[in-house]
Amino acid sequence: MQLQGIFAALTTPFAPDGSVALDKFRENIVRYNASGLAGYVVIGSTAESVLLTFGEIERIWATAREAAAPGKILIAGAGVESTAETMARSAKAAARGYDAVLIKPPHYYKPLMTPAALERHYRAVADASPVPVLLYSIPQYTGIAMTADWVARLAEHPNIIGIKESSGNVQLAAEISRSCGGGFQTLVGSASTLFFSLTLGASGGVLAVACCLPELAVEIYQATRAGDFTRASQLQQRILWPSQVIAGELGPAGVKYGMDCVGYFGGHPRSPLLPLSDAQKNRIESALAEVIARSAAISRAS
Amino acid sequence: MQLQGIFAALTTPFAPDGSVALDKFRENIVRYNASGLAGYVVIGSTAESVLLTFGEIERIWATAREAAAPGKILIAGAGVESTAETMARSAKAAARGYDAVLIKPPHYYKPLMTPAALERHYRAVADASPVPVLLYSIPQYTGIAMTADWVARLAEHPNIIGIKESSGNVQLAAEISRSCGGGFQTLVGSASTLFFSLTLGASGGVLAVACCLPELAVEIYQATRAGDFTRASQLQQRILWPSQVIAGELGPAGVKYGMDCVGYFGGHPRSPLLPLSDAQKNRIESALAEVIARSAAISRAS
Amino acid sequence: MQLQGIFAALTTPFAPDGSVALDKFRENIVRYNASGLAGYVVIGSTAESVLLTFGEIERIWATAREAAAPGKILIAGAGVESTAETMARSAKAAARGYDAVLIKPPHYYKPLMTPAALERHYRAVADASPVPVLLYSIPQYTGIAMTADWVARLAEHPNIIGIKESSGNVQLAAEISRSCGGGFQTLVGSASTLFFSLTLGASGGVLAVACCLPELAVEIYQATRAGDFTRASQLQQRILWPSQVIAGELGPAGVKYGMDCVGYFGGHPRSPLLPLSDAQKNRIESALAEVIARSAAISRAS
Amino acid sequence: MQLQGIFAALTTPFAPDGSVALDKFRENIVRYNASGLAGYVVIGSTAESVLLTFGEIERIWATAREAAAPGKILIAGAGVESTAETMARSAKAAARGYDAVLIKPPHYYKPLMTPAALERHYRAVADASPVPVLLYSIPQYTGIAMTADWVARLAEHPNIIGIKESSGNVQLAAEISRSCGGGFQTLVGSASTLFFSLTLGASGGVLAVACCLPELAVEIYQATRAGDFTRASQLQQRILWPSQVIAGELGPAGVKYGMDCVGYFGGHPRSPLLPLSDAQKNRIESALAEVIARSAAISRAS
Repeated sequence: MQLQGIFAALTTPFAPDGSVALDKFRENIVRYNASGLAGYVVIGSTAESVLLTFGEIERIWATAREAAAPGKILIAGAGVESTAETMARSAKAAARGYDAVLIKPPHYYKPLMTPAALERHYRAVADASPVPVLLYSIPQYTGIAMTADWVARLAEHPNIIGIKESSGNVQLAAEISRSCGGGFQTLVGSASTLFFSLTLGASGGVLAVACCLPELAVEIYQATRAGDFTRASQLQQRILWPSQVIAGELGPAGVKYGMDCVGYFGGHPRSPLLPLSDAQKNRIESALAEVIARSAAISRAS
Repeated sequence: MQLQGIFAALTTPFAPDGSVALDKFRENIVRYNASGLAGYVVIGSTAESVLLTFGEIERIWATAREAAAPGKILIAGAGVESTAETMARSAKAAARGYDAVLIKPPHYYKPLMTPAALERHYRAVADASPVPVLLYSIPQYTGIAMTADWVARLAEHPNIIGIKESSGNVQLAAEISRSCGGGFQTLVGSASTLFFSLTLGASGGVLAVACCLPELAVEIYQATRAGDFTRASQLQQRILWPSQVIAGELGPAGVKYGMDCVGYFGGHPRSPLLPLSDAQKNRIESALAEVIARSAAISRAS
Repeated sequence: MQLQGIFAALTTPFAPDGSVALDKFRENIVRYNASGLAGYVVIGSTAESVLLTFGEIERIWATAREAAAPGKILIAGAGVESTAETMARSAKAAARGYDAVLIKPPHYYKPLMTPAALERHYRAVADASPVPVLLYSIPQYTGIAMTADWVARLAEHPNIIGIKESSGNVQLAAEISRSCGGGFQTLVGSASTLFFSLTLGASGGVLAVACCLPELAVEIYQATRAGDFTRASQLQQRILWPSQVIAGELGPAGVKYGMDCVGYFGGHPRSPLLPLSDAQKNRIESALAEVIARSAAISRAS
Repeated sequence: MQLQGIFAALTTPFAPDGSVALDKFRENIVRYNASGLAGYVVIGSTAESVLLTFGEIERIWATAREAAAPGKILIAGAGVESTAETMARSAKAAARGYDAVLIKPPHYYKPLMTPAALERHYRAVADASPVPVLLYSIPQYTGIAMTADWVARLAEHPNIIGIKESSGNVQLAAEISRSCGGGFQTLVGSASTLFFSLTLGASGGVLAVACCLPELAVEIYQATRAGDFTRASQLQQRILWPSQVIAGELGPAGVKYGMDCVGYFGGHPRSPLLPLSDAQKNRIESALAEVIARSAAISRAS
């Protein structure tokens, strides 16, 4: 199973009464279908996964499955603290037609989540999952740092096909690509390093900022694959600032406001995530305005 | 509402088929009822809270409510990531007759969980909860450090009556007691510092190791309150090593094995928590043997 | 060699022209000689050791040697990054009549300062030193955490007789005392935990706050040794707040201002340490006023 | 003053008796003179700066000044803990003909080294220094993280002309370039991210691995400046692994052994830095062999 290109880490829209706005979610996907996105991650960190009930998650999974255009790859975020529950969710995602599952490490009992404990967890999940498993490295949220050596051991499992690497550390992504060999696929989770990671062996990206700027992210991927590194580098510079502000600094609320700015439905996050202040909104507006200005300048120049 | 004395942070026993063994849970509580424990925390970190479904949690809450002797205070662990879900669980615990709720901070989106965001979360929960709220500081699991100044701001809320402080930092517990004034109650979450914290203003302890050694923990509390600091200090020395090994180092699996050693039903933890190795079991056996030997020596001497 | 009781970690006074005020330094020591202090640490972190030239350090060592009353134990801070230079400084301190050397771990190349590298460093220093060696654990400054197991390995060296443990972690100090056996001496480096550490096996303390409140620190030691834990605990409560504010929070500048407040010569720190703001000075004045008020109250009560 | 291109962070060779081998140091520089290196950093972290006396440092500075070819820019590492001593060393470096000074932050009293304290230190040094000042961000050694906002404030000082940014965080280097405006020069301190940093605004690099592979580092710079991003990217991939192993993982001892492998004089580090094990040497040999093999392959292909 090939995971190449840009995957949007979808947000979860909420209705004014706080329930999940499945209609808005569907509308966003229909628009993304027209882009060059390779697929969608449904129920990642950007989706406020830990603030949703499993009932809500199942409806979101079903909606995305129906709304996604043929050929779009669907990856379900299915990892929770319990090994058994992670296995159960992975089975349900597979039953709904998802192509792979993305499994974040259990992390609440941090001092007990030794490399050995995490390895046992991932092997149990991968043994049981009807669809391929992606590891998920996001130490800024989990406090769990995955090393290249550890990843390489798990990469030998036939049902563990790759990793979403969101630490932002270019060297680590490169080291993982190097240690794990050709079959193992590294999807970078940070748009700030997309071009660089692609040149160092990543096969694509799973990006929150692709919810606001899907075409720009896809262009970086395509320019890099086409060998047009000059253009890829220019585009990388363009996405850097919005990516830092929107996804890196402001999280799901930032991504959602960025979506509102460019015509998707974003809306508010669930509490305890705070709604944005006016100053934060202004930073996002400026960052997006700059992208648009630079795009125009590059168009004029070419 | 007075929270004085020692509260056991109860474990969750599992049957061989992996389901919650409510009968064993009830039997443990019936035995604890005969001790001097002030009450129980039901569904704290020691209970493997994040590995249980809410259906299981509700049955555990109900069982503890039925089994607890009159006069034992019942505190429900009710905090999850979502503010709304935390409010819902608090209401359900109150409806089941729990005396207070213990609310750990949302922590998944760490960089976004600013002091302001956490304050808003706790105020919303405390505004809505029918029963008093305890803060819960356990940075080794959550990655969220609570400062004395921040706690003091929340202590002004009439429905926030105290904190379980599990960082192990004696100075912090003392600073909280000092900053928050007389009405606010600090329950220390680490048996290693019980006597010291009591002398510095803590009103009691919520202790995992009290599942194995309830009498010893209660004796430390009583000797301190009676002003017999010589005896309190001797007992503190006795509990230090088992507390470090069992609760500090080995977590829920360690507490459970310690319970098995002294005649309660402990059993195995849920995955991804690992079962203990033989070497780990031996460390627990040694630590408990030492307590028993020291107890005999102290008895002979007195 | 017995290291029992309270050692003041002396500050370095500076003259208005920025040079070391050896006369003021001598006057402070003469006053301390009249107290129950067991001795002095000369050129520890509190002395702004890293801001002094070795020429200045030698003059300070010589002055303290001359000024110290007979029977006061003198410990020289002699650790620097280089193993060879640490050995040379230790030899010079011994030649000047110092009783022991306190050696902080080399820490600049943190990722390279593995337990093995640090063990080799300390063994080389201890092999060569004409006087006994004390380890120095102060992770808040060095970023180097020493574990009880690691300390226990070094404690087997006949010329390594103890440790100054300044992490503030009561459990760690207790674990070190436990792991290292009777001959090894743990001096706690934090007044906030003095009484507790003494009950758990520490033989004394090396305290910055003893520069301002030597009698109070000595009284805690003496009451504990006399088995009067009630009084020791009361005194411990009294020293907690000034110790946190003066030494924990404000460092050498705080200790110096505290000394000025109670009649010793403190003065200003060297840059880049900042002079205190008025608000910081007020915090120190309040903390000291509270100690004096409590002392009066306790005197009246007894 | 323009700092463009690649600067080697020179190592300090030692003679068998442990003294500084100035003759070997000179020979290395004479060979580097023939390369495309823009200049040298003399007494950086790679030089084992904290293990040298100032007498040794002065002789090393003098030797480098004599040996460096005309046109090579010389940057002196002159930062120590004391503000006054840093000013004195900067003046001496300037008097010896150095073009700029590189000033690492004081970091021993970490909790006291607030942004305000560090700003005051750097302003004092920059006010006094006869030559321009470079900031130095290397949190893995100092524990001090510099933010882009903080750097931007200091960038307004007319005598602070740039920063060596060694954190390895590509986004941070980009953010600094963005925040500080055109005149401020960012030299990246990690070869692993050289090409990427150059495309995001860095003006060059100060690289330890340039002691072993100066031509390769210079080629990356030149290809990037020439707009040949395809070649720059290929070369970046080539340098990644040796840079990680030699400089990132093994530090000064690794750089020195790498130099020995390719014909410079490296030699052993000073204690407490450990000499390399055979396994570590093998890793370096493999990493360098791979570079050479890839270079041959690329040559054949072109």
